[in-house]
Amino acid sequence: MTSHTTLTGLEIRLAARPVGEPAPDDFASAEVPVPQPGDGQILVRNTWMSVDPYMRGRMDDVPSPVLPPFELGAVLEGAAVGEVIASRSADVPVGTTVSHFLGWREYAVLDAAAATVVDTGLAPAQAYLGALGTTGLTAYAALTDAAPVKEGDVVFVSAAAGAVGSVAGQLARRLGAAKVIGSAGGPEKTEKLLTDFGFDAALDHRAGPIAAQLAEAAPDGIDVYLDGVGGDHLAAAIDALRPGGRAALVGAISGYNATEPVPGPANLAQIVYKQLTLRGVQVGAYFHLFPEYIAKAAAWLADGSLHTEETVFEGLEQAPAALLGNLRGANTGKTLVRLAV
Amino acid sequence: MTSHTTLTGLEIRLAARPVGEPAPDDFASAEVPVPQPGDGQILVRNTWMSVDPYMRGRMDDVPSPVLPPFELGAVLEGAAVGEVIASRSADVPVGTTVSHFLGWREYAVLDAAAATVVDTGLAPAQAYLGALGTTGLTAYAALTDAAPVKEGDVVFVSAAAGAVGSVAGQLARRLGAAKVIGSAGGPEKTEKLLTDFGFDAALDHRAGPIAAQLAEAAPDGIDVYLDGVGGDHLAAAIDALRPGGRAALVGAISGYNATEPVPGPANLAQIVYKQLTLRGVQVGAYFHLFPEYIAKAAAWLADGSLHTEETVFEGLEQAPAALLGNLRGANTGKTLVRLAV
Repeated sequence: MTSHTTLTGLEIRLAARPVGEPAPDDFASAEVPVPQPGDGQILVRNTWMSVDPYMRGRMDDVPSPVLPPFELGAVLEGAAVGEVIASRSADVPVGTTVSHFLGWREYAVLDAAAATVVDTGLAPAQAYLGALGTTGLTAYAALTDAAPVKEGDVVFVSAAAGAVGSVAGQLARRLGAAKVIGSAGGPEKTEKLLTDFGFDAALDHRAGPIAAQLAEAAPDGIDVYLDGVGGDHLAAAIDALRPGGRAALVGAISGYNATEPVPGPANLAQIVYKQLTLRGVQVGAYFHLFPEYIAKAAAWLADGSLHTEETVFEGLEQAPAALLGNLRGANTGKTLVRLAV
Repeated sequence: MTSHTTLTGLEIRLAARPVGEPAPDDFASAEVPVPQPGDGQILVRNTWMSVDPYMRGRMDDVPSPVLPPFELGAVLEGAAVGEVIASRSADVPVGTTVSHFLGWREYAVLDAAAATVVDTGLAPAQAYLGALGTTGLTAYAALTDAAPVKEGDVVFVSAAAGAVGSVAGQLARRLGAAKVIGSAGGPEKTEKLLTDFGFDAALDHRAGPIAAQLAEAAPDGIDVYLDGVGGDHLAAAIDALRPGGRAALVGAISGYNATEPVPGPANLAQIVYKQLTLRGVQVGAYFHLFPEYIAKAAAWLADGSLHTEETVFEGLEQAPAALLGNLRGANTGKTLVRLAV
């Protein structure tokens, strides 16, 4: 680019608030002029963006203490990585690869302070959206802090073929779990749990009630549960958790598209008499662990001991389809959009 | 007693497993011969016994990792205090006052090792069933460990006129809470919360939905919730808890008489995005805190800074009525039966 041409880029906006499952019409794309960075700012050409189930929540007009709802008509947001192509910050020069939170657009202008420089010598840029990004850190925070895995534990991970779950299963093993059980939808994913993600047992929630499958896979119960699903999975885990058991709740995808309140498990009294702990995880509270986590996980990626997968959608136009697929459970591993600009 | 007369005493047995609310016919009383203590055992004349909502759970034939179901036809069990009237243990001589777990009978024979000597110089014997007993310790464990109260917290206590709640409210204040809100059923109890138990606000769950009342009493939310109720109270608390909020679950009396599974709150997704912690409390896991707790609480009782109440039923025959009253929310403070033998 030069300063006398006008750079334009595509962005995806929230066109309508979805009722239930989002539809393509809930999104709109627009080609817009890209502003020049102001003082202390950088202009980033986004190369990859992250698509995550939590984004569905931001499409509703419901106040949240964490992230506000997306605004109707405004461009969406989310994690992305890209290359700095113009800079008015000495700290982040042109050519740097950064991660930031202005995804859903081809070009982003932001304060340099809001960007994190990533080391593409350590891992490819898009890894910083997945195994080395918030989804990997979510798994790490869940199993080391919110519901710490101890030597010999039986661990159950739901949404186990997803971005968080697929890392969590391998992490549980590394933390000393004696048995790691995962659940996913369909034979293809459950097979992958066993062959690629190192689970000892794989439950297919589309094949039958999860509670019976979990009871069979863990006849003596479980110690730790990582919940990305809620609903029947959470109920089954509460039944299966042994006294003193711990659950980290990182998401509740089963309810994200619900249009009516979904009652919770009928077995919460077990929390009392089994002295269970249920703890919610917001990864933003764990960003201080990023350096320690990235150092470890990058080494595991480099030596091949951490297996990851990506479901990649090509071009920003495909980002809505990527999110819809994610919410339907159609994707495996980390869902990414590669931006082709 | 002398060794050549046969001592007999009343005991209360489980005659039938209740369906829903227990009925008087679910209990049976019998006058039985009292055995002599064996080697290492003591014979205790029970003077007071404790009646607690959790006993309802033991009347069902449902396995529990904590306490097994009561056996049909067998004498019930529960905390009691009494005087040692015969002893074959040098550690626990005749005349000692002890607490133990063989209530629901006038005389108990047990291993001396299963009895705890209580100091009636510090507080009356029956205090060791309430404020100095497991219900007091439950409040202490809940608010110092499971859901610790910090300086300036807004704390909500349900079943606040009960044995646990009435101690918990005063404890929360002592731990630095800025505002302590309690809920109870009916104007008499809620009045008592304000005048006797030191609550800043009292919600009457019989007067209207608890969620709206809690939102009004704590417009900026709560930090800590002590749950003895479950159901609508737990849902309201989850709505009101601020990010990082903590809930100690000590009981779920709203569901104890349920004959069908009762769905849980529909707002559990808030656990995730507000990073809430829900933790069950079984007081048995905290018995190591008894010495430190009793020392503190006995001093508070002695200087009048801890106010307690008792609802006393006279005579073991009244024990079923005491439990039924407890489950219906008819009693205030600690429910006790005074044994008149």
